[in-house]
Amino acid sequence: MEVRIKILFTSLCHTDVYFWEAKGQNPVFPRILGHEAGGVVESVGEGVTDLEPGDHVLPVFTGECKECAHCKSEESNMCDLLRINTDRGVMIHDQKSRFSINGKPVFHFVGTSTFSEYTVVHVGCLAKINPLAPLDKVCVLSCGISTGLGATLNVAKPKKDSSVAVFGLGAVGLAAAEGARIAGASRIIGVDLNANRFELAKKFGVTEFVNPKDYKKPVQEVIVEMTNGGVDRSVECTGHIDAMISAFECVHDGWGVAVLVGVPHKDAVFKTSPMNLLNERTLKGTFFGNYKPRSDIPSVVEKYMNKELELEKFITHEVPFSEINKAFDLMLKGEGLRCIIRMDA
Amino acid sequence: MEVRIKILFTSLCHTDVYFWEAKGQNPVFPRILGHEAGGVVESVGEGVTDLEPGDHVLPVFTGECKECAHCKSEESNMCDLLRINTDRGVMIHDQKSRFSINGKPVFHFVGTSTFSEYTVVHVGCLAKINPLAPLDKVCVLSCGISTGLGATLNVAKPKKDSSVAVFGLGAVGLAAAEGARIAGASRIIGVDLNANRFELAKKFGVTEFVNPKDYKKPVQEVIVEMTNGGVDRSVECTGHIDAMISAFECVHDGWGVAVLVGVPHKDAVFKTSPMNLLNERTLKGTFFGNYKPRSDIPSVVEKYMNKELELEKFITHEVPFSEINKAFDLMLKGEGLRCIIRMDA
Ligand SMILES: NC(=O)c1ccc[n+]([C@@H]2O[C@H](COP(=O)([O-])OP(=O)(O)OC[C@H]3O[C@@H](n4cnc5c(N)ncnc54)[C@H](O)[C@@H]3O)[C@@H](O)[C@H]2O)c1
Ligand SMILES: NC(=O)c1ccc[n+]([C@@H]2O[C@H](COP(=O)([O-])OP(=O)(O)OC[C@H]3O[C@@H](n4cnc5c(N)ncnc54)[C@H](O)[C@@H]3O)[C@@H](O)[C@H]2O)c1
Ligand SMILES: [Zn+2]
Ligand SMILES: [Zn+2]
Ligand SMILES: [Zn+2]
Ligand SMILES: [Zn+2]
Repeated sequence: MEVRIKILFTSLCHTDVYFWEAKGQNPVFPRILGHEAGGVVESVGEGVTDLEPGDHVLPVFTGECKECAHCKSEESNMCDLLRINTDRGVMIHDQKSRFSINGKPVFHFVGTSTFSEYTVVHVGCLAKINPLAPLDKVCVLSCGISTGLGATLNVAKPKKDSSVAVFGLGAVGLAAAEGARIAGASRIIGVDLNANRFELAKKFGVTEFVNPKDYKKPVQEVIVEMTNGGVDRSVECTGHIDAMISAFECVHDGWGVAVLVGVPHKDAVFKTSPMNLLNERTLKGTFFGNYKPRSDIPSVVEKYMNKELELEKFITHEVPFSEINKAFDLMLKGEGLRCIIRMDA
Repeated sequence: MEVRIKILFTSLCHTDVYFWEAKGQNPVFPRILGHEAGGVVESVGEGVTDLEPGDHVLPVFTGECKECAHCKSEESNMCDLLRINTDRGVMIHDQKSRFSINGKPVFHFVGTSTFSEYTVVHVGCLAKINPLAPLDKVCVLSCGISTGLGATLNVAKPKKDSSVAVFGLGAVGLAAAEGARIAGASRIIGVDLNANRFELAKKFGVTEFVNPKDYKKPVQEVIVEMTNGGVDRSVECTGHIDAMISAFECVHDGWGVAVLVGVPHKDAVFKTSPMNLLNERTLKGTFFGNYKPRSDIPSVVEKYMNKELELEKFITHEVPFSEINKAFDLMLKGEGLRCIIRMDA
């Protein structure tokens, strides 16, 4: 059930940086990082019937076996077999790695390991897409942009003319804001500690900005005051526990829904008064914006092809593979959104 | 906008006991407790057009002004004007009490104060019901039974053939179980620390029992093992923070929904790993089962009249008003479910 793909373009997502730093995560080294990418099938292994050499694919960190209770449920994309597992560094079939250096294994990362000219991926983690779609653009749909977009459209589901707060204005958060704009939200409040994000965010339909550093009181209180009781929806895209708590506590009682997207530190604890829940607020979380990679992502690619979704504005930098460290530097400095890494150069 | 009603029957809910003990709550004394009752309108004040003397009514601790954003929202029953306020001991209009003893005010409780032959209630907190409905039965719909039933039917919304865990098998929890049975759940797992509850619970469609005291490991782990990954829905009806956390952590990833109903200690903190949320679990809470008292409760009474809903099995004791302390003793000992208190005797 394995497929070897030639990666043509890959980009850097904050999740790679966390696992590279391995500060709040279990370290598994040496491993090949990278999970946001586009490529072409080079060869297929035994049991693979859906794909053939030459097919254009997006590898996805969470898969879809199409057989388990999750794959059969309308609500879940957390496939029992292929869901994200950040501690596993091997293939499922034989618990071995397909990479080695001088005879020693080099581990995989979330089933994708796209910072490599060639990689081996389970067929359930590959979305077969329109071969006319430019891989140097749609590769960003393989993680961050779909995650943010789906978190809003599939999980938070804001109504027309409602208010939405987005915590973290990186690519994931701005894709969440784009989802709010598409859904017809009338107020989209962007929250970020990095003031540089605010200029960029205007292109994504963000109507107001809040920098928690500008206030003495907790940012949830600022937002509750700005919105006469709280926002209708919030989407957290930072990975920081304080932002997760603020994102929950800033939604309106009675109907507010908060959606957590950021990958937390492994020891993080979410804390709130149960009265905030009793007062009829809803708290949810999502992986990959609740999209099922094989069933749903081809149609998100079509949204780009039909110009319903703009991807160019998420792509602020481009480097050849030999300069991949520049992509890390940009993310660590909080500059730009997505940096496309060209594998052929 | 005030109505004086003659209370005919009232019953005791655990919320009364909490505010009587005033352990984890702000004490407001002297006050007249009681909020689950049925009565007849004696006279109406200025501005009241919906009710007239002789109407049969159920007073409800949370009201419905029909004007505010919550009353106009389909999702919320947390009226801006009349929502539950456990610290207020006076009427909204003039911030004064309608009760006194020797010229000194006696405070109200959650706008109802039904442990009294006559009480004054805001018109927005009164559900006008079918005059043929026996008040000694339907009075339990004024709080506990509607709360549990609605928590399941309106908020948790279990699908047919799904599994539901109910924490706390008092009247509220058993009404939640009854909701699960009505919704067609095939497994209804009752969780209680009091083993006496289990025999009683069989009448309410509870199919399996778990007493957390019988296990060394946390009860959420026991339930996850019993159900191959967790229940589809859970409803917490205990008011204890550990049960709230267990109720959340025992739902299935991907699609599980937990609903909190119990009134927590005022300093309680809900704590969980944010990964439990990221793994696509939903956490919600509700007051009064999300029913709007004036719009929705008359039709819940009709469900009883049409024999869709049985109330007799919730009523295990009956005492005259002079023996009200017996009702407190029964609840403190965990014996029986609802004790009806007759005001005329
Ligand atoms: N759930 C999923 O499926 C999924 C998928 C992809 C990415 N992620 C996670 O989403 C998050 C965002 O990813 P990204 O690539 O956009 O990262 P990014 O670094 O580009 O953006 C994160 C932004 O959050 C801001 N921020 C940090 N702490 C904050 C705080 N306390 N309050 C407000 N803003 C704060 C940063 O300044 C930054 O602008 C990361 O945690 C990533 O791991 C989750
Ligand atoms: N949200 C609302 O609108 C609303 C309305 C009415 C009642 N309530 C609350 O609902 C709760 C239940 O009310 P009731 O009248 O049914 O009370 P009750 O005392 O009759 O029943 C509560 C049950 O919970 C059990 N219990 C206590 N701690 C437990 C634990 N850790 N694990 C498992 N079981 C435990 C007790 O043994 C008891 O059987 C109370 O907290 C009450 O204040 C809330
Ligand atoms: Zn990613
Ligand atoms: Zn699956
Ligand atoms: Zn009650
Ligand atoms: Zn109202």
